[in-house]
Amino acid sequence: MNFQDVQELDRNDPLADKRLEFALPDNIIYLDGNSLGALPLAAQKRSQQVMEQQWGRDLVTSWNTHHWIDLPTQVGEKIATLLGAARDQVICCDSTSVNLFKLLCAALEMQQNRRVVVSQEDNFPADLYMAQGLSQISQGNYCELKLTEDTDLETLLDDTVAVLMLTHVNFRTGKLHDMRKLTELAHEKGILVIWDLAHSTGALPLALDEWGVDFAVGCGYKYLNGGPGAPAFIYAAKRHHPSIRQPLSGWMGHAAPFSFAQNYQAAPGVQQFLCGTPPILSMSVMDAALSVFEDVDMRVLRSKSIGLSELFLQLVESSEATHELELISPRESSERGSQLAFAHPQAFSICQVLIERGVIADFRAPDVLRFGFAPMYLSYQDIWKAVYILAEIMANKTYLGDKYSQVQKVT
Amino acid sequence: MNFQDVQELDRNDPLADKRLEFALPDNIIYLDGNSLGALPLAAQKRSQQVMEQQWGRDLVTSWNTHHWIDLPTQVGEKIATLLGAARDQVICCDSTSVNLFKLLCAALEMQQNRRVVVSQEDNFPADLYMAQGLSQISQGNYCELKLTEDTDLETLLDDTVAVLMLTHVNFRTGKLHDMRKLTELAHEKGILVIWDLAHSTGALPLALDEWGVDFAVGCGYKYLNGGPGAPAFIYAAKRHHPSIRQPLSGWMGHAAPFSFAQNYQAAPGVQQFLCGTPPILSMSVMDAALSVFEDVDMRVLRSKSIGLSELFLQLVESSEATHELELISPRESSERGSQLAFAHPQAFSICQVLIERGVIADFRAPDVLRFGFAPMYLSYQDIWKAVYILAEIMANKTYLGDKYSQVQKVT
Repeated sequence: MNFQDVQELDRNDPLADKRLEFALPDNIIYLDGNSLGALPLAAQKRSQQVMEQQWGRDLVTSWNTHHWIDLPTQVGEKIATLLGAARDQVICCDSTSVNLFKLLCAALEMQQNRRVVVSQEDNFPADLYMAQGLSQISQGNYCELKLTEDTDLETLLDDTVAVLMLTHVNFRTGKLHDMRKLTELAHEKGILVIWDLAHSTGALPLALDEWGVDFAVGCGYKYLNGGPGAPAFIYAAKRHHPSIRQPLSGWMGHAAPFSFAQNYQAAPGVQQFLCGTPPILSMSVMDAALSVFEDVDMRVLRSKSIGLSELFLQLVESSEATHELELISPRESSERGSQLAFAHPQAFSICQVLIERGVIADFRAPDVLRFGFAPMYLSYQDIWKAVYILAEIMANKTYLGDKYSQVQKVT
Repeated sequence: MNFQDVQELDRNDPLADKRLEFALPDNIIYLDGNSLGALPLAAQKRSQQVMEQQWGRDLVTSWNTHHWIDLPTQVGEKIATLLGAARDQVICCDSTSVNLFKLLCAALEMQQNRRVVVSQEDNFPADLYMAQGLSQISQGNYCELKLTEDTDLETLLDDTVAVLMLTHVNFRTGKLHDMRKLTELAHEKGILVIWDLAHSTGALPLALDEWGVDFAVGCGYKYLNGGPGAPAFIYAAKRHHPSIRQPLSGWMGHAAPFSFAQNYQAAPGVQQFLCGTPPILSMSVMDAALSVFEDVDMRVLRSKSIGLSELFLQLVESSEATHELELISPRESSERGSQLAFAHPQAFSICQVLIERGVIADFRAPDVLRFGFAPMYLSYQDIWKAVYILAEIMANKTYLGDKYSQVQKVT
């Protein structure tokens, strides 16, 4: 593979023009869209409209005139199309963590005689923290969290288990679970499954309805490009709606929020997962950001995602300079999401030098260098250049030295 | 009181120039700042910076370089100065409802042998809904909600009560509780108190530390002008920090969020109330909006608030046309927040006509017309004009007719 071949890949890329819909700076190669997606121009425009015309000029009347009140549903339906979900099952609200808490409670309430929540030791720590928090209330009687290694997962699924809580794409390694198979397996034992789609949504085709998924959460600021800390979402299969009860019963989830009735009465559908007043600026920006996906076939996007990561891997594997990087993602592209991760004792320092050189990757403690491939705005030439710079850094060991030894705050 | 007197009041208003810091349209009189505060120019500017320079250009590195990670604390400390709270006790996060849930859980966990939560029947329904939601979990064993009328409140406070949950300023009538007295009374019986400051913060001087308050929540989008659905806040008195345990134990509240450790360990201070990743766009705008308060003495602001509402009332009471409006706020200014409310069978229609005439007030079911007085951007002449228009509408009964009979969605 030489640079001419790579240019040819870009010429044949059906998504090549998508980059024009983003405000990315020219001087960087952004391989961290799996942490924070880039800024869509439509989002920038909307932000200005919401500030100046909606909030500034029309003030409180915008709840009606600019349909702020409909945003959670409107954004939810846009996300639904990316999840393979029919209408009335997805809603945008709160953070992924808060939404996970609602779903854990709802699922546990549906499983009156089972108290065990099963998850994986290497699940996203934030998800484990939420389950741990829940397991502490009522003197620890509300639920019990059991963690397992990947290989033992299936053996732990028996009829004492209420809920299986998994992340579809592992945040560190990018390893992809077989969502359909695990959901079916859990259902055979009467277990409800909650999927975290943080690293899947907007990165690969999903078919939640077809796969019989019960519940899912996901985040707006990674591949959905909804902006830093963008509101998250909840998917709840329609068949479960009549059985749902969740304790974060805020006024936005009331059947008649503006009646100001004294007693809570849950809205009948997925709206009952709404809690307090949503952050309209952030949610409006998220709404606009999703327009980027309107004309995109997710299979085409997935195909480019694999193309980008395979090129990256091929270039890394064919370079002597990078042989110290140990791949911790699955080698088989169908078994991973839209990222690659490598272990290296100096991962933190290497990441810092990459950033200085304009290649934005990220570091995950203790020793992981992570590269995300957002097919919406990355070219094959970006990948070529990124690996070239990486190889140069590795060959010259420019990452050694005091300058790069400090502990990172956030990456 | 004639118009010349009113002009004189404006000439002597020490806060008159504050209006220049807002992007209010010229053709309206905005008496709904208690529902959604107006747009500060500083917030508009910050929004553009965050979109273009921070997110757009500096992308994920902005968590460090633009201090996104510090926003919850930074905004919290700005709010603290308005609450009469020393450092390290206030944090900005989530919605008021979610924060109330955290505090209810934290307070109940501190009261192992008491399960009763007392509140008022006319408390803000959204607050009641959160307590109701909590009271449903664990087969209804987690807590018991008891509601009381205003007059019976004190008699209900005995040593079976774990938590007293009150709103400082009633959302409908504007009636103000004596926070210090009720807190002391509750403490005598070993009861912890949670105050909702939604209609107080930024509207009147508060002294939470001095008054011995345990916990409080409040909202960012009313008198703080933080924008629609702006993030809310939590106050937790420092003496309680070592005893706090709350189940929404998200990664932002972890003692070391970026260690990605498997087990949750709460941050030692008020940071332990953080949960998921905050909406940075909304929180940045809120941060900038608070700059409006930097040079404002809250006693001066309160004095103008009373001046505005007294003028409104005096004009309403001296007009024959408005005699059908029944004041449901306390007549004594020291007993109410920064609003006035009137009952009228046609309140909804009157409100609609007022809005058409450029006077933005709001309606609260079933029959309440509510006027908020935000001293930052209202003049005495605004009040004069608003009552003039109100009187004209009432005199001509222009609010009668089919056009105004539809049910409102949101106001």
